Amino acid sequence: MSLNLQTHTEHFTNPLYLESGRILEPYDITYETYGTFNDDKSNVVVVCHALTGSHHAAGIYEGEVKAGWWDGLIGPNKAIDTDKYFVICSNVIGSCFGSTGPMSPQHPHHEPYRYKFPVVSIKDMVKAQRILFDRLDIHRVHAIIGGSMGGMQALQFAVHYPNFSNKIISLAATHATQPWAIAFNKVAQESILKDPDFRQGYYDPLLIQEDGLSGMAVGRMAGHISFLSPESMREKFGRDYKRTDGLYELFGKFQIETYLEYNGYNFTKWFDPLAYLYITKAINIYDLSRGFDSLSEALKRVTAELHLISFKNDVLFKNFEMKEIADELDAIGNINYTYLDVDSDYGHDAFLVELPKFENNIKDMLNG
Amino acid sequence: MSLNLQTHTEHFTNPLYLESGRILEPYDITYETYGTFNDDKSNVVVVCHALTGSHHAAGIYEGEVKAGWWDGLIGPNKAIDTDKYFVICSNVIGSCFGSTGPMSPQHPHHEPYRYKFPVVSIKDMVKAQRILFDRLDIHRVHAIIGGSMGGMQALQFAVHYPNFSNKIISLAATHATQPWAIAFNKVAQESILKDPDFRQGYYDPLLIQEDGLSGMAVGRMAGHISFLSPESMREKFGRDYKRTDGLYELFGKFQIETYLEYNGYNFTKWFDPLAYLYITKAINIYDLSRGFDSLSEALKRVTAELHLISFKNDVLFKNFEMKEIADELDAIGNINYTYLDVDSDYGHDAFLVELPKFENNIKDMLNG
Repeated sequence: MSLNLQTHTEHFTNPLYLESGRILEPYDITYETYGTFNDDKSNVVVVCHALTGSHHAAGIYEGEVKAGWWDGLIGPNKAIDTDKYFVICSNVIGSCFGSTGPMSPQHPHHEPYRYKFPVVSIKDMVKAQRILFDRLDIHRVHAIIGGSMGGMQALQFAVHYPNFSNKIISLAATHATQPWAIAFNKVAQESILKDPDFRQGYYDPLLIQEDGLSGMAVGRMAGHISFLSPESMREKFGRDYKRTDGLYELFGKFQIETYLEYNGYNFTKWFDPLAYLYITKAINIYDLSRGFDSLSEALKRVTAELHLISFKNDVLFKNFEMKEIADELDAIGNINYTYLDVDSDYGHDAFLVELPKFENNIKDMLNG
Repeated sequence: MSLNLQTHTEHFTNPLYLESGRILEPYDITYETYGTFNDDKSNVVVVCHALTGSHHAAGIYEGEVKAGWWDGLIGPNKAIDTDKYFVICSNVIGSCFGSTGPMSPQHPHHEPYRYKFPVVSIKDMVKAQRILFDRLDIHRVHAIIGGSMGGMQALQFAVHYPNFSNKIISLAATHATQPWAIAFNKVAQESILKDPDFRQGYYDPLLIQEDGLSGMAVGRMAGHISFLSPESMREKFGRDYKRTDGLYELFGKFQIETYLEYNGYNFTKWFDPLAYLYITKAINIYDLSRGFDSLSEALKRVTAELHLISFKNDVLFKNFEMKEIADELDAIGNINYTYLDVDSDYGHDAFLVELPKFENNIKDMLNG
């Protein structure tokens, strides 16, 4: 069967009560679906995206060449089999691909929120999705799966909506964002804030689309260090020298430098700097135990079948962070979970690029 | 006895022939000495500084409170015992603490070199020191020791001036700078270059002294990620929240963020951005095997007693990089060396702050 890719936006006028005590109203959520509902709507799989991901997780839009960010995993006969499952991926609130974020108009005005946008948390993102699913008359799903910030969302679903999903699969995530991850985000945030073209959030979106915000490019370069690993950088780049104008030219470049430049500056053409500030903030304040006496108390709420997947050389969300969740689950004792540490040298982005290393596990987790 | 701290600057009018084929002339080298010569000048220990270090390695200047960067290691009865050794530490060429660098006047003009300054390499830094020692009538030394970029210099001495030092002690360094270290430097370089106040090297030094260059601050923040380790960040900062204005305020700060800000912005008040560009370039192009068929061929030149010290959780120059040197030395077979991997969680800066973990080793290496 075909992927049956559909893109929709739902509009909500009831206020979304946020963890901060503030409200967001009205708001939109843009989402994609793949596959079709079965008779009793029991075949829904929710996919959650990472920091700069979007609802476009699979398939290729007409006129484009680049597929969705997990296209290798989602589709007919793939690990998340759209012949079998109805898959939904929504753009998180705070982002910039259709769902309400800091550059959305602040109702009833037509001016963007900018800094007036409330800080949203991963829990808020999850709550908004829950409301979207209500609207779609989906009250229980087969599975929720995501990597990185998507994996955080999956875990928040498990703790805060324990009866909503049969299965939870969280990849390359953590129970609480650790200082080294906050540090990488800090470099990016500070770099954006100090870029004079950012103008404290009053940047010109058109200007940015053309030239990019160099502050965000620099910040994204730091991010890319955390997405790879020493091992994968050595493998991919080594000490290869890219430019021919000589090792002793001040601006001659190693391959790794060219890679960072390309990815840094290209990023500024497709992502919004205010959304970057808000989503990295959401990641920084993410702590699964917030509102509970301990991580253990939070995890005791889990009733779904829970699958934790870490990647051995992830330097952003280190494998021991997922292991810490597994250890807590062991201590609690009655939760049905698995923990898999994928033997990968790639680094954090392994959850996006090394699918052959874990796609069969995902398939088994979903179908088992 | 006292430390006998003395600071001097030597002026050289003969050209310094650089690896690039360019020359530097004239040039100054500023250096410090501690202790006193013995009768036959056989008690000289050379200390080499890191990226942002200086010749001020020990003691406290009158009116200041902060001691030299290796004060815990250098002094009477310390591991590098100034009652026994005459210690010399010089500011590398390309730096900004008295030795000739990119903000020095370009002879015969009075305007700074800025981008016209030649790219210098670690080998060039070492060559300049060798010429300084000639001037001081020092033709052979007891030991050369340094950490990080200082450790690179020590290794370059071992390979290129094999008969100059009895002992070489290299800490927290590598045989060739790897792509992840280049990546951290790239973030800093790009951040400096894109700061409009940098003005392509035509920044106003007075303006910078007052406000600092935010681009360099951001770059330095990235650097600090590489100086610590996940373990030490967790230990030092955890998820402590510094400011009281609330977790849900966009600009509320975790302790790690405050730490990075303080160190980033403070750095801009005492280091020159052009020197940062040139010295990170020198580090990036550092490769002990350059000019030889292989690292092994380079290392075969070593005749000194060679001591390699790595730190277990160093994320900048990873411990396996030093081990790679040790493995080559093993394969060569007839070189007198030791390799010590210090069991430290601190990260790269352990060579500066965890002295008790290795100072006795240094003492034994020097005296044995």
